[in-house]
Amino acid sequence: MYRTHSNGELSASNIDQEVTLSGWVQKIRNKGFMIWVDLRDRYGITQLIFDEERTAKAVMEIASKLGREFVIQVHGKVIERESKNPNMVTGDIEILVSEVIILNQSLTPPFTIEDETDGGEDLRMKYRYLDIRRKPVRENLIFRHKVTMAVRNYLSEKGFVEVETPYLIKSTPEGARDFVVPSRMNEGQFYALPQSPQTFKQLLMVGGMDKYFQIVKCFRDEDLRADRQPEFTQIDCEMAFVEQEDILNTFEGLTRHLIKEIKNIELAEFPRMTYDDAMKRYGNDKPDIRFGMEFGELNAVAQHKEFNVFNQAELVVGIAVPGGNSYTRKEIDKLIDWVRRPQVGALGMVYSRCNDDGSYKSSVDKFYDQDDLAKWAEVTGAQKGDLICVLSGDKNKVRAQLSALRMELAERLGLRKADEFAPLWVIDFPLLEWDEDSKRYHAMHHPFTSPKPGQLELLETKPGEVKANAYDLVLNGNEIGGGSIRIHDKKTQAMMFDYLGFTPEEAKAQFGFLMDAFQYGAPPHGGIAFGLDRLTAILGGQETIRDFIAFPKNNAGRDVMIDAPAPIDKAQLKELKLKLDL
Amino acid sequence: MYRTHSNGELSASNIDQEVTLSGWVQKIRNKGFMIWVDLRDRYGITQLIFDEERTAKAVMEIASKLGREFVIQVHGKVIERESKNPNMVTGDIEILVSEVIILNQSLTPPFTIEDETDGGEDLRMKYRYLDIRRKPVRENLIFRHKVTMAVRNYLSEKGFVEVETPYLIKSTPEGARDFVVPSRMNEGQFYALPQSPQTFKQLLMVGGMDKYFQIVKCFRDEDLRADRQPEFTQIDCEMAFVEQEDILNTFEGLTRHLIKEIKNIELAEFPRMTYDDAMKRYGNDKPDIRFGMEFGELNAVAQHKEFNVFNQAELVVGIAVPGGNSYTRKEIDKLIDWVRRPQVGALGMVYSRCNDDGSYKSSVDKFYDQDDLAKWAEVTGAQKGDLICVLSGDKNKVRAQLSALRMELAERLGLRKADEFAPLWVIDFPLLEWDEDSKRYHAMHHPFTSPKPGQLELLETKPGEVKANAYDLVLNGNEIGGGSIRIHDKKTQAMMFDYLGFTPEEAKAQFGFLMDAFQYGAPPHGGIAFGLDRLTAILGGQETIRDFIAFPKNNAGRDVMIDAPAPIDKAQLKELKLKLDL
Repeated sequence: MYRTHSNGELSASNIDQEVTLSGWVQKIRNKGFMIWVDLRDRYGITQLIFDEERTAKAVMEIASKLGREFVIQVHGKVIERESKNPNMVTGDIEILVSEVIILNQSLTPPFTIEDETDGGEDLRMKYRYLDIRRKPVRENLIFRHKVTMAVRNYLSEKGFVEVETPYLIKSTPEGARDFVVPSRMNEGQFYALPQSPQTFKQLLMVGGMDKYFQIVKCFRDEDLRADRQPEFTQIDCEMAFVEQEDILNTFEGLTRHLIKEIKNIELAEFPRMTYDDAMKRYGNDKPDIRFGMEFGELNAVAQHKEFNVFNQAELVVGIAVPGGNSYTRKEIDKLIDWVRRPQVGALGMVYSRCNDDGSYKSSVDKFYDQDDLAKWAEVTGAQKGDLICVLSGDKNKVRAQLSALRMELAERLGLRKADEFAPLWVIDFPLLEWDEDSKRYHAMHHPFTSPKPGQLELLETKPGEVKANAYDLVLNGNEIGGGSIRIHDKKTQAMMFDYLGFTPEEAKAQFGFLMDAFQYGAPPHGGIAFGLDRLTAILGGQETIRDFIAFPKNNAGRDVMIDAPAPIDKAQLKELKLKLDL
Repeated sequence: MYRTHSNGELSASNIDQEVTLSGWVQKIRNKGFMIWVDLRDRYGITQLIFDEERTAKAVMEIASKLGREFVIQVHGKVIERESKNPNMVTGDIEILVSEVIILNQSLTPPFTIEDETDGGEDLRMKYRYLDIRRKPVRENLIFRHKVTMAVRNYLSEKGFVEVETPYLIKSTPEGARDFVVPSRMNEGQFYALPQSPQTFKQLLMVGGMDKYFQIVKCFRDEDLRADRQPEFTQIDCEMAFVEQEDILNTFEGLTRHLIKEIKNIELAEFPRMTYDDAMKRYGNDKPDIRFGMEFGELNAVAQHKEFNVFNQAELVVGIAVPGGNSYTRKEIDKLIDWVRRPQVGALGMVYSRCNDDGSYKSSVDKFYDQDDLAKWAEVTGAQKGDLICVLSGDKNKVRAQLSALRMELAERLGLRKADEFAPLWVIDFPLLEWDEDSKRYHAMHHPFTSPKPGQLELLETKPGEVKANAYDLVLNGNEIGGGSIRIHDKKTQAMMFDYLGFTPEEAKAQFGFLMDAFQYGAPPHGGIAFGLDRLTAILGGQETIRDFIAFPKNNAGRDVMIDAPAPIDKAQLKELKLKLDL
């Protein structure tokens, strides 16, 4: 037996016991006559002591040769420590070692295995197995496990059945983002890896499974933005015989349970906001409502004056920055530079200081008097001491710009607190979204998303205004889940395909087996999918999903530890009946 | 709301309640003035009644138009049923329907949606979503969910952490069975889908994760035998600082818990048998020990007589078939034909009848007298009324042949009971296995499997006799799990690679990142992997894993429902920098 205890459990109550421990050498202090070693495993750190007065010479000798990250097994007695460490479970004791075995040596690790390491991102990724030895990374992975267990147990208790759907599926004609897998047994043919189990979960509903979920890997061969992965994990869910209200209640329940279970925070009922409202009030379909700084639309009070920039704008909109009047002129100039960065794209920013004496001082005093500015303050909800920031221009663009500014300022003001959780249902998403490239409308969610009752008639006249039974769950400014009620009747489905410009042949090629299935009694159904990587990161109070994935890939889709992807043998290509065409 | 209750819950206690139900039309009995409909969902069946004396005419009219598998919603009153069905939860009641809505129509399904269906395998696979509506299939999937939940909760409580390992990994130079995935972002390069997370779980041990598990899809692009799938699910486990004994105890605990939880059967301690013993006693490394019929080796008592067939054989071995003396001559001749089938491959079979009067009658009476045959009976444990079946020839071949006969006879005799569970650890597997093609030894498990202490020296002299710290868990004659203690020290690993004929370059190319990792303090570790598909089928008392997979593929690796794999667009190939080379 390699150990009687872990390195995280011995305390004063074990004093005088003989124990065997195993683990990694975290730290060595060698004073010659006395050697202290911190022995580490997943569970904690225990201090070992080798003392020439009490330890056999042969053992002292081995101890003197230990190096960082050596794997050792020791036998010894639990004794009281002289200088206790109240911050550690094992801080009251140490082990007086009588035997030591070096189970494995270690080269000097390329970075320190400490909570704060000297290793950069690239090095840590290359040696991810060493990075995982670091407590923060290990704890993230354990945290992820706890989240998935809580999700599974909750859904299972609610009658959901986890069903594994296939990974080797079929590429769709427009599946530009599909990873494909050549088949050796079916020459010249390919499987595709699923971007999501969407069609299979709908087939399970047709199959009467009633309540389905799956925690499942999904794949997308797309250019990776900063924090995306080519393989990612979804909590995928679907229910039959439900309306939107049933889905929202069920998964609000899941989320509330999760945050209670994992963070011990009791959340109130989740607020709901329409997509239109979210865009109007926050310029964003996933608003962070941990803080205020709501948009105030100023067209009525700021237009029709002499200021042409505003007069010509589709939208003039501002936010009140709490305490922002304390910014110096230089700081405000920097803020203007910030909104002018290409990533934000504003042409400029107008501001108005709200002085403590109730007066205002704006960058456009030439055009607006105190009464005008008082109205700005009223509309944006600005108080004495605040700064009103105003952007103007094309409605959609200016909303995105002001939303970016709002988030940036909130971050600077410390309003985005990691331990605060503000969920929000965003509902009534548009059914369609305009695509500039193809100059037509596309399904915003997917072509099976059902329109709101009675809105289908708008398709011909005001397609952009048709609302869908589609919803997102937003947490702290991140979309953590999204879904919809699906179309389940043939007539509506045919109308949708027709409107989206599919010929019956195209619809059949892309969605044939699902449409076939729908002929045999599809129940009303709907669902939702959560991004587990993001959800876990947010619950863990962190930003980067990569920190919650055991072996992540970099921005080029590469696993730098195993050096994948990589060229393959000619023989292997030949077997697959493929040639490179570089 | 589509329903107030499911179709499996209403009983006499609900009489007089107004309820809303939804589901599929299972069966219709239309007597004109009265119509009965069985309404089905995942939870059960509820009988609806439409009665022209009590039901509005418009409702009667809709009811008369219903067809099988229509999806309907009804509102009505729970009433007592006249002819009660005590076999159904809902058998005491029926619903007197006051409103009915057809939620969806259905074409006539291609096979009946009943426990016993008229649909053949192919048809059921093509319309798998309809097959899943059948109770036996649905119950299998729900059963699988229960098994995975029980596994996850047990392991989680024991301190195991489920860690997701990547699906897009690296193909190894000898990875003939790898499915590969071309990368668009890394032109001319490929990922591979994992055959198992073996190296990653070992890296997690190097990373100090200590106890890991994962229920995970694995992929193998090999010719599919009858009951194999290109994608299959493993319960993959690994532990650090363990010896074989720790692994056996831990996963015996899991298996015992599972069978208790799922089948309510309390199993005793699992017997253990060496590989050598299993081969000797059952001719098989995964013996079914639900029944006896152990091998009796007859060389000592049957050789050195006049019967040259036996004299020239490496092994003469028999089994006693309980009650087999009742077989007619014709039946025995058929048995001889059976062992001569190419799939079994025996040249012939000798038998001896054990008569009720204590005498024997054998097919080789010319060479053996009653005393000889009495010894055969003694060695094989045959009783009065049994039949002794004897095969002879090359040791390995004859063992396989007699094992096949043993299983066949046990099946015929009803000794392989689906509700009986006989687990067995088979231990001390050989480290190496002779490969006739390459005329050398290969690692039986994989090259990281550790030899038994002190046996490494035999590598040069008697390589076939070196035993490994490798073990299989066998249940009812099926290998449900297998694993090993891994080599964790560089010296042994180098010896192994050298012996297996890897040059250092080859070893580096195939196992480079794992060998790199092993330089930084790998702990002693070992693990096991269970085949979830098989395990679930056996626990479910069935033979075919396909029945426990929601969307299985056929023997050609095809999903006939979605028609995958399939050709892909030229444009898609071009983007991947690939050309077909048929």
